[in-house]
Amino acid sequence: MSPIYVIGGLPGYTPEVGRLISMMNYARYTTLSAVQGLSVSELDELLDEKSNSIGALLMHFAAVDHIYRVETFEEREMTEEETAFWQPALNLGDEGRTVIKGHPLEYYLKLLEETRERTLEAFRKVDDEWLFREEPFWDGQPANRYFMWFHVFEDEINHRGQIRLQRKRLGRAAV
Amino acid sequence: MSPIYVIGGLPGYTPEVGRLISMMNYARYTTLSAVQGLSVSELDELLDEKSNSIGALLMHFAAVDHIYRVETFEEREMTEEETAFWQPALNLGDEGRTVIKGHPLEYYLKLLEETRERTLEAFRKVDDEWLFREEPFWDGQPANRYFMWFHVFEDEINHRGQIRLQRKRLGRAAV
Repeated sequence: MSPIYVIGGLPGYTPEVGRLISMMNYARYTTLSAVQGLSVSELDELLDEKSNSIGALLMHFAAVDHIYRVETFEEREMTEEETAFWQPALNLGDEGRTVIKGHPLEYYLKLLEETRERTLEAFRKVDDEWLFREEPFWDGQPANRYFMWFHVFEDEINHRGQIRLQRKRLGRAAV
Repeated sequence: MSPIYVIGGLPGYTPEVGRLISMMNYARYTTLSAVQGLSVSELDELLDEKSNSIGALLMHFAAVDHIYRVETFEEREMTEEETAFWQPALNLGDEGRTVIKGHPLEYYLKLLEETRERTLEAFRKVDDEWLFREEPFWDGQPANRYFMWFHVFEDEINHRGQIRLQRKRLGRAAV
């Protein structure tokens, strides 16, 4: 991996794809720091009845990675099987609170690693032209794939902010 | 402003600078959506004794914008006067809780707009070569200016996640 504080090209990717992945890498690096050493009960803990557990947020990152890969690279919708597995993590809220619990950190780390590995494999097969292609997205407004994958990491950073807030309330040191 | 869901070049900026600013623009757009219509007491509200008010987080975004502009474009440290004004917002925590309160939303919006305007003005005078220049940064490790300004918007997104969490607990609709 290239230096963590440099946004730049990465071997195996076209220039713009490499820059995007530099940012995805940094986001993931900070996520992993924020959850290091958490126990099952810390991963399941809820701040209050409206909150998402840290475990559910971790699974959310893997779920978002998965669905964006399926939609942008494979250009298909998720199968019934995929939907059954990932939907609670995509939806979070009540559904996430009911279904996602009882797992050790390693469970989530494995999901994160597996989904990200498949995403990176897909990115190695496309180029900058692919990244800048536009299509109708939220509210039918145009978005390019750069934006879609920017959203994947900016959503992760958004929830990482919540993880950090929740981590501090577990009596853990700030990261 | 170009379409909000497109990461791409922007008139008046070199190509990579434009892409970076597309991302900064989107981050700011979502921040502004997350605080729309909040009252003075909602901006001052604390989730608990460890939390930062939404008002303090908004001022933090302006403070980070200011200090990164001073350090990366003007290549100087903040003056005593600047430090006195911005330090509580940079530090947050106890200092932020004590000092930053009682302001209407317009106060924070004006700070955000003024600092961002000066930042964009500075970005219009540099180019991609400037953006990729590296220098020692955190822990003496190399960082390029792209990373430094990526950090400015990723820090905003991190705290926007916390603002959204706090907003929901004010009984406001999710955004």
